[in-house]
Amino acid sequence: MEVRLIAYTPQPELTIAAAARLSTTNSKATELLDRMTPERANALIDRLLTSGHLSPFEHASFTFGIDGISRATSHQLVRHRLASYTQQSQRYVSVKQLSYVTPRSIEERPELLDRYRQAMAANHGLYREMLQAGIPAEDARYLLPNAVETRLVMTMNARELMHAASVRLCLRAQWEIVHLFEQIKIEVDKVAPRIGAELKPKCFMQGYCDEAETCGLLPTLN
Amino acid sequence: MEVRLIAYTPQPELTIAAAARLSTTNSKATELLDRMTPERANALIDRLLTSGHLSPFEHASFTFGIDGISRATSHQLVRHRLASYTQQSQRYVSVKQLSYVTPRSIEERPELLDRYRQAMAANHGLYREMLQAGIPAEDARYLLPNAVETRLVMTMNARELMHAASVRLCLRAQWEIVHLFEQIKIEVDKVAPRIGAELKPKCFMQGYCDEAETCGLLPTLN
Amino acid sequence: MEVRLIAYTPQPELTIAAAARLSTTNSKATELLDRMTPERANALIDRLLTSGHLSPFEHASFTFGIDGISRATSHQLVRHRLASYTQQSQRYVSVKQLSYVTPRSIEERPELLDRYRQAMAANHGLYREMLQAGIPAEDARYLLPNAVETRLVMTMNARELMHAASVRLCLRAQWEIVHLFEQIKIEVDKVAPRIGAELKPKCFMQGYCDEAETCGLLPTLN
Amino acid sequence: MEVRLIAYTPQPELTIAAAARLSTTNSKATELLDRMTPERANALIDRLLTSGHLSPFEHASFTFGIDGISRATSHQLVRHRLASYTQQSQRYVSVKQLSYVTPRSIEERPELLDRYRQAMAANHGLYREMLQAGIPAEDARYLLPNAVETRLVMTMNARELMHAASVRLCLRAQWEIVHLFEQIKIEVDKVAPRIGAELKPKCFMQGYCDEAETCGLLPTLN
Repeated sequence: MEVRLIAYTPQPELTIAAAARLSTTNSKATELLDRMTPERANALIDRLLTSGHLSPFEHASFTFGIDGISRATSHQLVRHRLASYTQQSQRYVSVKQLSYVTPRSIEERPELLDRYRQAMAANHGLYREMLQAGIPAEDARYLLPNAVETRLVMTMNARELMHAASVRLCLRAQWEIVHLFEQIKIEVDKVAPRIGAELKPKCFMQGYCDEAETCGLLPTLN
Repeated sequence: MEVRLIAYTPQPELTIAAAARLSTTNSKATELLDRMTPERANALIDRLLTSGHLSPFEHASFTFGIDGISRATSHQLVRHRLASYTQQSQRYVSVKQLSYVTPRSIEERPELLDRYRQAMAANHGLYREMLQAGIPAEDARYLLPNAVETRLVMTMNARELMHAASVRLCLRAQWEIVHLFEQIKIEVDKVAPRIGAELKPKCFMQGYCDEAETCGLLPTLN
Repeated sequence: MEVRLIAYTPQPELTIAAAARLSTTNSKATELLDRMTPERANALIDRLLTSGHLSPFEHASFTFGIDGISRATSHQLVRHRLASYTQQSQRYVSVKQLSYVTPRSIEERPELLDRYRQAMAANHGLYREMLQAGIPAEDARYLLPNAVETRLVMTMNARELMHAASVRLCLRAQWEIVHLFEQIKIEVDKVAPRIGAELKPKCFMQGYCDEAETCGLLPTLN
Repeated sequence: MEVRLIAYTPQPELTIAAAARLSTTNSKATELLDRMTPERANALIDRLLTSGHLSPFEHASFTFGIDGISRATSHQLVRHRLASYTQQSQRYVSVKQLSYVTPRSIEERPELLDRYRQAMAANHGLYREMLQAGIPAEDARYLLPNAVETRLVMTMNARELMHAASVRLCLRAQWEIVHLFEQIKIEVDKVAPRIGAELKPKCFMQGYCDEAETCGLLPTLN
């Protein structure tokens, strides 16, 4: 898996803070942005988070190139609807070199791992034969397993990133999507550390765990 | 594939028409709805469509039970973001009986069909073995092919249904999702024929085809 | 102000519960809905709320006729973006009879109330003269105060209703929109009491107040 | 009215084009972006527009500071739901200096203009008195007319900008919001001329007018 921030709103934290200031002052956005300092932005962002006033975080967007996640995970990812996705098509792009994801639970069991790999190779072999026999790629791909890698471009604003991370960094989430959001957090940390710091599991925000089966990191409510 | 309308806004067309009337009259919504007749609703709906004034169509929602589509198709379906989905989880529900979709292009080729079926059975066999060997369902499913069937509940309002159908009933769309929207149209036709009549490919709305590779049904622009 | 539920998804709570069941069982939505009882639906809804699994609540929609709120309040209301609105137009519908909202703080001060009423009448008088002098309604309305009443049709699903109520039933919210959501809650209570019970201020959900200036009903975090 | 682009996705057109390429090739987003040239981006954008494949345009966002539009216009603007807004609050910011918008139809009639100005001053005078008499700003503002100026920060992606402009640059739209989108177009033209060129009334896209009362610029369908 490789996650790269390919574009983002410049000065994301200053932009968020300037927008937030606008609602309670009598100044123009351009002036507020010119006068905003990183220190004041951080203080304002703290206050927005404490009071649950999250809409100004929508003014900063982040665009990621995401390569090498499984279709199992991309199917979950695109369920976040307040975001934009452009995904590599299995209808138009035929899978020449097979790349696939292997869960660690299988990787640790040599006898299962061997059979997993053989199954992947066999499936891909038949897929390739189907293509050669004239079956369209959009039909032959019905053979391809969930493990097969895909790539996509995803744009999310900071508010939705915080929400998605709160759900997907939970240790009860599926391990591959946890890993994806860890990579996303690393990328955001580089350019917007104050926002990056808010990419964390929901239990850290709530102070307790609300999962039916807890991982035990934080206490449940009863 | 089985598609059933399991719930919808009662009197969807009257509700849409009453809402539309409200914007240009000085009457209460309840009165407008009481006085609305199917004939006047149809006339109003015609006018809304002609002038591209589509927001009143959002007041009528349709909830479908969708069974037996492939994961290939569900992955496309959930890309329509102005809708609500609840999907059967491959993390929590293990696949005991294998049900899968077979593309017609493969079905028509006996020698390929045999091998397709064998590949499905082999994959499912290994999946079952993995479960018995203690691999969690959420990891074993990496083996499952795109063809495996899923089910979901989907709620879409009439405006988004018209949009999604315009894109997905295009003969250039993927055949399984075309079939899905044909079934959706059949269900809507039963309870809201005026809306059902608007579930049609985009070329019927535009009067021309804008696809890079046309199916030839309607002329392209040049 | 008059708020009337004019349409809604029939059996909203059973529909939500059946959809939620689908994600973790191997049954069709139609069967799950047929077998669902109010008791089991309530138990399931409890579990969804405890674990913050809110997406199934999107499958039930509620459509309200809202009459006699001020334009000050409608401007706030339409900021909830996950909903559908059709509003009476001040461009196309000229205001013949003046109806306007009076804040209680002004109503309780007879000397101010008199002048408030006179100002409303004077503004409306000039507005009417402008219309007669040939000024288009869409321009004459620049004179009309925030207090002038409007009406609209609003459709929201149960998930967004719970969110909007959590913010708008807070006693720190603007009094007229608090009143609006109290009326909405009364309407929902009649047909979906389990959902109606969840229309409550955010502090009741969180167990604490996160407002900068608390009303004192529940303790703040520090 | 003053509209300023205060932040935007850098290289918006290259980003859109690289994302679009990803769906039909087998390369990483970072590589596609590195290799993209303005010429190839323009050619790709042409093709996306011709085929109605608009989702890649969502990867570029634009954030505007908007000052001095009337509350009449801001109420219309925020109806575009696929965007983010932070608006100056009339609840928390009291209106000390009265700034208001005057429609040209009134400006051209000296006798009406005088009375318009007097009405604005009288309203604002009473508003100020109310504040001094202890009425909260959130209640006193019920007196303030639609004409009173507001300011906001708005973020919209390129896809929604094209849609909103298609509706709001129509000469049948309300003149102040037409003017707002003309300013928005001027700002976008400076940094993303290819996208700016697509900010145009819907009739230019469709080739005909679908308004009930046409302005006559382009022919209607019958």
